[in-house]
Amino acid sequence: MGIKLGILGLGTVGTGTVQLLLDNVGRHSLLRELEIWRVGVKSLDKPREVDLPTGVITTDLESIVNDPQIDIVVELIGGIDRARELILKAIANGKHVVTANKAVISRFGAEIFTAANKAGVYVMLEASVGGGIPVIQPLKQSLSVNRIHTVTGIVNGTTNYILTRMQTEGSNFDDVLADAQKLGYAEADPTADVDGWDAADKIAILASLAFGGRINREEVFSEGIRQVSKTDISYADKLGFVIKLLAIAKRISPLSPSSSCPTLSVRVHPTLVPKTHPLASINGVYNAILVEGEPLGQVMFFGPGAGAGATASAVCSDILNLAARLTSAKSSSSSSNIDPLLACSHQDYCPIAPVSELIVRFYARFLTKDQSGVIGKLGTCFGKYGVSLESVVQTGFQGELAEIVVVTHDVQEGKVKQALDEIRTMEAIHSIPSLLRVI
Amino acid sequence: MGIKLGILGLGTVGTGTVQLLLDNVGRHSLLRELEIWRVGVKSLDKPREVDLPTGVITTDLESIVNDPQIDIVVELIGGIDRARELILKAIANGKHVVTANKAVISRFGAEIFTAANKAGVYVMLEASVGGGIPVIQPLKQSLSVNRIHTVTGIVNGTTNYILTRMQTEGSNFDDVLADAQKLGYAEADPTADVDGWDAADKIAILASLAFGGRINREEVFSEGIRQVSKTDISYADKLGFVIKLLAIAKRISPLSPSSSCPTLSVRVHPTLVPKTHPLASINGVYNAILVEGEPLGQVMFFGPGAGAGATASAVCSDILNLAARLTSAKSSSSSSNIDPLLACSHQDYCPIAPVSELIVRFYARFLTKDQSGVIGKLGTCFGKYGVSLESVVQTGFQGELAEIVVVTHDVQEGKVKQALDEIRTMEAIHSIPSLLRVI
Repeated sequence: MGIKLGILGLGTVGTGTVQLLLDNVGRHSLLRELEIWRVGVKSLDKPREVDLPTGVITTDLESIVNDPQIDIVVELIGGIDRARELILKAIANGKHVVTANKAVISRFGAEIFTAANKAGVYVMLEASVGGGIPVIQPLKQSLSVNRIHTVTGIVNGTTNYILTRMQTEGSNFDDVLADAQKLGYAEADPTADVDGWDAADKIAILASLAFGGRINREEVFSEGIRQVSKTDISYADKLGFVIKLLAIAKRISPLSPSSSCPTLSVRVHPTLVPKTHPLASINGVYNAILVEGEPLGQVMFFGPGAGAGATASAVCSDILNLAARLTSAKSSSSSSNIDPLLACSHQDYCPIAPVSELIVRFYARFLTKDQSGVIGKLGTCFGKYGVSLESVVQTGFQGELAEIVVVTHDVQEGKVKQALDEIRTMEAIHSIPSLLRVI
Repeated sequence: MGIKLGILGLGTVGTGTVQLLLDNVGRHSLLRELEIWRVGVKSLDKPREVDLPTGVITTDLESIVNDPQIDIVVELIGGIDRARELILKAIANGKHVVTANKAVISRFGAEIFTAANKAGVYVMLEASVGGGIPVIQPLKQSLSVNRIHTVTGIVNGTTNYILTRMQTEGSNFDDVLADAQKLGYAEADPTADVDGWDAADKIAILASLAFGGRINREEVFSEGIRQVSKTDISYADKLGFVIKLLAIAKRISPLSPSSSCPTLSVRVHPTLVPKTHPLASINGVYNAILVEGEPLGQVMFFGPGAGAGATASAVCSDILNLAARLTSAKSSSSSSNIDPLLACSHQDYCPIAPVSELIVRFYARFLTKDQSGVIGKLGTCFGKYGVSLESVVQTGFQGELAEIVVVTHDVQEGKVKQALDEIRTMEAIHSIPSLLRVI
């Protein structure tokens, strides 16, 4: 037994991780070098699905991050403040860290990685994005020889499940959400998922790795799926699109040898995706991350975005990676030779462009009083703000009101908003129930 | 300038690799530590798309693998015997090797990795399967904490391009092949692609990494796509399938703590894939590899399977990985601490089950003389050999002959063959033009 683990948390992911590590037949032989030395929990009385020797389980989490025998601390308690504090203490004590905590990393990554680099340890986070999908490691290693220009992900299983069911069943958001909560696919308080915050945490992390700079989480724009209606899903379908909650990070500034941090657009919003796009067919609780770069072109990673087994797989892959370094570096002179492909040494923040400056296509739905010439008036007003239209379709009636759907060409977001402000004041316009972006 | 590269070959992939390395703005900063020290070519007179300093290009390939200054040899000449010889010499001289050569690795991997382990060097092969898709590294690292049970890939772009066009255009194999050759998507001699040999090389490599044992390339079953007809593509479509050339490696034997090498089924053949399957929507020259394991579930990697840029991305990711090790190990005491996640230390061969023992579903198409009761006779004969049928459809007529399509339930391949041998002798049966497996 060579490498000692201190695991913080024995909830769903913690239990999955312990189960995987204890049952190592048929897995990488290096897992047999690992010893579950301590597991920190809130309560000793709770019944557990895993059998651990007496003395391993403790409620004293401090004692784990301070234990001089422990090589790797695995943080699986979730939440923010306490997790951050324990991670920083573990680092200060010279321990490598594995975490699944996207909320902490997206908010305190700069602090945590600075501390880790100073201490000469690694902080690994494969499980923080995309569940079991290996995407963090490829971004840090294989894909980094490319000039990445866009990372686009379906990174929240709950919202993808809801949108998929709305699409296939023609149901309303509220009904599907209620059912998803009953089935355990959505939390009792679904805010972090349906309002896009979880996806925003994740795209902040992916953007940081793909573009080699720090991301200020506060600057990540996020718009959730509460306002996506079955009506829009149905119109999108007729126009050849599906609606997905996409998390997008895109390089905006041209390449420059002097600046290491490009200006980015980093955002989360419901998006009309052409049915032929690789992300269009990612359904249910699955996640997928599409990476585009030069000279590679497009690669996509697809898999289960959550769940005990999938997340445990990612957590254990990080532990394995560290174990391989610890094993092969055993007889080396010092631990000061940090592997630049495992460490995270970004120094600068990437500037984030405000959404109003984005160039993007829009889908808008209008309810109009059925006056002749209303389409002409819409077109004229859009034209005034430089917004050119790809298609304008009068789709039907809702009671007395005619429904008109417009898809624009690529246009600056601010211009569309200006045009819509003016359109809203028109006599012929009853309301603008939907405005969605198009990829 | 720290790390010196000797590149063998300056064809499509070699040129792409040199271009990527010379133009390193916006890529991983570690690439700036690399120096293209020598590039070996067949002829100095050929015009080149890359500008290299005088003295770098040489026709003396031996001098490269023997050059004491070179750290990493990048083998991109293709072919088998000469490539094998140069790789082995480079290893014997203590150089790390990067290769895109699936033919050499699938045939001589055992010899090459034994030599590499003895010499304490790494042989990296990301570019040998799936072009630019990072799949080798995830299989060696992240995914290896799982018990992999199946790896299924669309790993040959040429055949996927041909099948996709046959599907979308309703064209014949011969016509699409001729056009693909004209467009450069298929070689003048298309044998290695259309007969499944290239895919067999690749699945042998993937199987070895996924299941931790050596694979005897000779035992990999391969059936190509020459006999796939537009008629079958159209019937498959009606039954809810598309036809893909799949490369499949599957664990057959149950888990056992004592044996490190499970019995596998490793094979390549055209396959009916349900339209809802993740591989069904992989079209054109794209590749995808689906990995299934416990506790992960399914993950899929998708991207460009070939092309100068994509392959150069994979080659350079291997070079980057080695550079990171060389940089971080610089002040270490010795090079003898081989990283178990980068090395390939398989000792034993995985037993490969003969296809006749496989349990699989079949699709068969019969041309019958339109006698009443022929469906009953077919069913009776299949039943005699224990083959149960999922569906039997009389699809139409070809001249005087009635066409009947059958899909079986899971059944041992040998039993189906026995039943078909008997059916062929029936008076009512004119011929059996198609027999395909179903996933």
